[in-house]
Amino acid sequence: MKRSGIITLLTDFGLKDPYIAMMKGVILSINIDPRIVDINHSINTGSIFQAASQLTETFTYFSKGTIHVAVVDPGVGSDRRLMALEAEDHIFLGPDNGIFSTIIDRYSPSKIFEITEKKYFLPHVTKTFHGRDIFAPAAAYISLGTEINRLGPPLTEPVKISPPMPIIKDGVLYGIITHADNFGNLITNITAADMGDFLKGSSPETHIGKIGIRGICNTYSDVDQGEFLTLINSSDLLEIAVNLDRAFEHAGLDSNEITGTEVKIFKRE
Amino acid sequence: MKRSGIITLLTDFGLKDPYIAMMKGVILSINIDPRIVDINHSINTGSIFQAASQLTETFTYFSKGTIHVAVVDPGVGSDRRLMALEAEDHIFLGPDNGIFSTIIDRYSPSKIFEITEKKYFLPHVTKTFHGRDIFAPAAAYISLGTEINRLGPPLTEPVKISPPMPIIKDGVLYGIITHADNFGNLITNITAADMGDFLKGSSPETHIGKIGIRGICNTYSDVDQGEFLTLINSSDLLEIAVNLDRAFEHAGLDSNEITGTEVKIFKRE
Amino acid sequence: MKRSGIITLLTDFGLKDPYIAMMKGVILSINIDPRIVDINHSINTGSIFQAASQLTETFTYFSKGTIHVAVVDPGVGSDRRLMALEAEDHIFLGPDNGIFSTIIDRYSPSKIFEITEKKYFLPHVTKTFHGRDIFAPAAAYISLGTEINRLGPPLTEPVKISPPMPIIKDGVLYGIITHADNFGNLITNITAADMGDFLKGSSPETHIGKIGIRGICNTYSDVDQGEFLTLINSSDLLEIAVNLDRAFEHAGLDSNEITGTEVKIFKRE
Repeated sequence: MKRSGIITLLTDFGLKDPYIAMMKGVILSINIDPRIVDINHSINTGSIFQAASQLTETFTYFSKGTIHVAVVDPGVGSDRRLMALEAEDHIFLGPDNGIFSTIIDRYSPSKIFEITEKKYFLPHVTKTFHGRDIFAPAAAYISLGTEINRLGPPLTEPVKISPPMPIIKDGVLYGIITHADNFGNLITNITAADMGDFLKGSSPETHIGKIGIRGICNTYSDVDQGEFLTLINSSDLLEIAVNLDRAFEHAGLDSNEITGTEVKIFKRE
Repeated sequence: MKRSGIITLLTDFGLKDPYIAMMKGVILSINIDPRIVDINHSINTGSIFQAASQLTETFTYFSKGTIHVAVVDPGVGSDRRLMALEAEDHIFLGPDNGIFSTIIDRYSPSKIFEITEKKYFLPHVTKTFHGRDIFAPAAAYISLGTEINRLGPPLTEPVKISPPMPIIKDGVLYGIITHADNFGNLITNITAADMGDFLKGSSPETHIGKIGIRGICNTYSDVDQGEFLTLINSSDLLEIAVNLDRAFEHAGLDSNEITGTEVKIFKRE
Repeated sequence: MKRSGIITLLTDFGLKDPYIAMMKGVILSINIDPRIVDINHSINTGSIFQAASQLTETFTYFSKGTIHVAVVDPGVGSDRRLMALEAEDHIFLGPDNGIFSTIIDRYSPSKIFEITEKKYFLPHVTKTFHGRDIFAPAAAYISLGTEINRLGPPLTEPVKISPPMPIIKDGVLYGIITHADNFGNLITNITAADMGDFLKGSSPETHIGKIGIRGICNTYSDVDQGEFLTLINSSDLLEIAVNLDRAFEHAGLDSNEITGTEVKIFKRE
């Protein structure tokens, strides 16, 4: 596969430490050419679910032949495996901890390999920073044309994690809030397709805590300032928002209880 | 106009979500060459004033032929227009909501066009993310040489917003604090020129709340550690600071009441 | 020395203001080619120690010929000098305030020069933003091949700061916590070499406040979730951590008292 010349990075390393810069230094020392794009370094510490979901919604906006390095790796240095895979003509590198579960389920990778071949690592590999010592140099070599089957043996039975899926029970569609975005909008795990299949033309009434929201809007300004609305957002997910304000605070949630909050959809005529 | 090879991004999207990365992916899928520079993604949510002011002080440090994409867009998906303009041999793309007001006032753009031509958009345009679906691809095509008059019809009567201007009343110059910077320095809307015109050689005494500061310094270390001072800052604005400390906390302000706090300048002999 | 084509930036400017973007605009206006990599812009305000330490652990991951601009400069605009130096075939630019102390001590620079030559500055130099007006253009000219001896006269007796060093007293090794990283791990100023020299094969018992931790691990998952451990981290420093949790909170520290907290190592059989 032709390389796009782009390497993306997705981690939970935050923006206060020089860890990301070390990874970039390692990459550019091996190959000065690739464009390095930060997807996000503020993934909640150790949240493999959140990383998996952001990667899945984001990678398709990059050219085919892009290399994506995803390091949310609470098991770093344990016997968890390291993996590389190709799917949809993109290449993914990260720990075998479920971070690529959704991509594997959805896109049936053409190749999955373990990363074991030390000649693609830094000469000294620490126990606690495989992002810098293994994934960064491996990504740089891949950007130079190394094929992922050179990194190690085929990897079978990758670790799977199952993000909570919406369910229908007694005629009600149950989902959860996965996170609040920077605007305080509440993003659910309910897709546009889930809504369509469930509603079959009826109008929804969405409940979160004591709040009920009738119908579904196209955009925020379809309701008055300060009013709740729902819409299908730019990632094709049901979103609960407040026009020109933060739904998160309006709903009376606190930051520890956002993720997992139940959302119920009822059918109305 | 020759392109500089640089695209800048200014948004209120924050650094926790993958939205900026999606925009970069879209740009680089259309044109792999441009350098993408983040101006700031931590604009206060929906603050068109703040975005306008940061863009105005920043764009001149970039080469002519640079494309600036500014997306602080609380009306996304409503009938607000999208616009492209050329001024001072720079190109600006963003919503027609006043974000370019200061640039239009100060530099009289040579061209202003509406962005309506779908062939410069992503194939699927959502209602809530025009940054990714319209501005990013349009910027990429412009970086390849597309002229902005190809994006749509001329746009007349762009939306204007008027940032609060300093006034003189009864021999006192009244301004406001616009924001505190990362160091806790308090930045006002009073320019060096405003001060010069008002003082005509007298010495200023600056009042904020109960604090009065005599004279004006060249730099922070002109006073002892922990003491208040004023100076004309690197953006030619009157700034209220405390040497080696945070004026913001010293002045007893809280973060909700910074913007708009009154500043008064008296003339002293 | 051949240039690597990379310029790194390390500052305490934060991510809310457009200051970094102005520096990048200035650099790219003079030389469009260099790759600009952010090391970190969230250094604690004015913390020369923290900047020095992050720079020292990070620069070696970049190619020789890289230019590093470090601007933590509480004395900006005072009579403190500005300096450029070469060490280990890297080039460093910053204020003469101790920010390069560790690099000077450890690597004996081949050249140290003052930066005084105005033709490498912006035409208008403000008193409060030498990062943009002096260091950025000077770095850009250096990236084009200008040698640092062109920037000004040799600089002698650079300012030195001495980071607190571990000491041994009555058979106990005393160090301090320098900072908590994004994961809440507590990083000390005790190196792997300090530990080896002190322990000479004995096993350590590490004390912080009322917490005692026996032995030393290879990685986080060597203990159960929620348990304290120590390890030598990826920067070769003793680190106090909690598996899958934040040592910082577990140790009952608050954010104002992390830096400088005493750590004691006892020898056990």
